[in-house]
Amino acid sequence: MTTSTPSAVLQQLNWRYATKRFDPTRQIHAEAWAALEQALVLAPSSFGLQPWKFLVVDTPALRQQLRAASWNQSQVTDASRYVVLTGLRTTTVADIDRFLQRQCDVRGATMESLAGYRKMLVDFIAQGWASKDLAGWNARQVYIALGQLMASAAMLGVDTCPMEGIDAGAYDRVLGLEGTPYATLCGCALGYRAADDKYATAPKVRFSTAQVVEHR
Amino acid sequence: MTTSTPSAVLQQLNWRYATKRFDPTRQIHAEAWAALEQALVLAPSSFGLQPWKFLVVDTPALRQQLRAASWNQSQVTDASRYVVLTGLRTTTVADIDRFLQRQCDVRGATMESLAGYRKMLVDFIAQGWASKDLAGWNARQVYIALGQLMASAAMLGVDTCPMEGIDAGAYDRVLGLEGTPYATLCGCALGYRAADDKYATAPKVRFSTAQVVEHR
Repeated sequence: MTTSTPSAVLQQLNWRYATKRFDPTRQIHAEAWAALEQALVLAPSSFGLQPWKFLVVDTPALRQQLRAASWNQSQVTDASRYVVLTGLRTTTVADIDRFLQRQCDVRGATMESLAGYRKMLVDFIAQGWASKDLAGWNARQVYIALGQLMASAAMLGVDTCPMEGIDAGAYDRVLGLEGTPYATLCGCALGYRAADDKYATAPKVRFSTAQVVEHR
Repeated sequence: MTTSTPSAVLQQLNWRYATKRFDPTRQIHAEAWAALEQALVLAPSSFGLQPWKFLVVDTPALRQQLRAASWNQSQVTDASRYVVLTGLRTTTVADIDRFLQRQCDVRGATMESLAGYRKMLVDFIAQGWASKDLAGWNARQVYIALGQLMASAAMLGVDTCPMEGIDAGAYDRVLGLEGTPYATLCGCALGYRAADDKYATAPKVRFSTAQVVEHR
C-alpha cells in the first residue's frame, strides 16, 4: 500500500490555502503534473458520466486574455499551470451512449447487455431529480473534480487557487467554447506560493468543527 | 514536509472506486476518522463562506430510514460511517456576517476593517453571477468538500461511495432539516470494501486522458 497517515493528510490539508501570489519562476515537475491530470481524469462523477473537459492553458497570450477576464488576478498568468474546468451544458442521449460505449471498450461488455442500464440513464436525464437543471447537475460533478484536484495537489505539496471570480462567457470566447457542448465553470491555478504571499501565514478562517460537523 | 509522491497519489486514486458493498464489521479508526472530518471542515469554498453542514449519522435506526430513502442501497447501513452533506438553501447577509465575525475572531480583524469586503460580498449575493441561483452555487461548494473528502479517504486507504441517488426531501424529514437553512444534497458512505464486492476489481471506466484533458 501507498497510503498516507492521518497526521500527514491533516498536515497537508492545513498547509494548503487559496494562494494569491505564485512564484512565476517555479514549475511543477512533469511527474507531479501527470499525477494531477490523472486526479482530474479519475475523479468520481454521478453514474461515472464524466460530464467535463479540462483545458490546460499553456499559451502565454491566452493566459493574458484569461487574466483580463478574471479581474486581472495574477494567479492566471503567474502559476506554473492554469486549468479551466468546463462542464457539459446539458446531458443528451448521445452523451450517455458515448459513456456506455466506453464501458464496453474498457470492460468488454456489449451495448445489448447494458440496455437496461441505458434505459435507466435515459429516463433519469429526462425525468429524474436533476432533469430540470442538467447544467447545474453537471457543474456539481465538475466541482468534485476540482476538490479532488486541490486535495491531491496538497498531498504533493503543490499550491492551488480555485478561481470562481471570472467572466465565464469571456473565457468561452477566448477558448473557443462558444457553440460547443462545454461551458467554462471555473479555473484553478497550480504551482508554488511566492515567498511574499502574506496569505500563506494568515490563520485559516474556518468555522469550528462543532459548528459544521454534527452527529446524529 | 509530509507530502506524498506522485506515484503514491496516483496509486491511491486508482485504488478508489465507488464501493457497492462495505464490510459491516470493519470500522474506521478514530484518528483516521478525525482527519476525514477535518477534510470536510478544511475544504475550500467560494470566498471561504463554507455554506454547509455535514451530518455524520451514527444512529442505526436513522441509517435504516435513510437507506429506505436511498433505493435500499446497503452502503447506507453497512459502511463504517455515513455522512449527509447539506448546503445552505440560500445565502443571506446574516450568513456573510457570521463568516466575517469568524474572520474577526480567528484573525483579530474588526468588522469595521472588513466593511469594504462586506459590501462586495453583499453586492455579490444580490447581483453577482451566482445571485440567480444561490442554492446551486452553494451546492457546488459542497461538492468541492465531497471531492476533498473522497480524495483524502483514498490517501488513507479508506473506501467511499458517493450517494446521489437519494430522496433528498425524505432525508430532510428524517434528519429534521425541514424549515432549517440547510438542505440535503448528497450522502457519502465511508469504510472498507467487502471481500466479495465484484466492482472492486472491475476495470475503471474513464474516458482517455486525451479525451478529457486538452492543452491550449
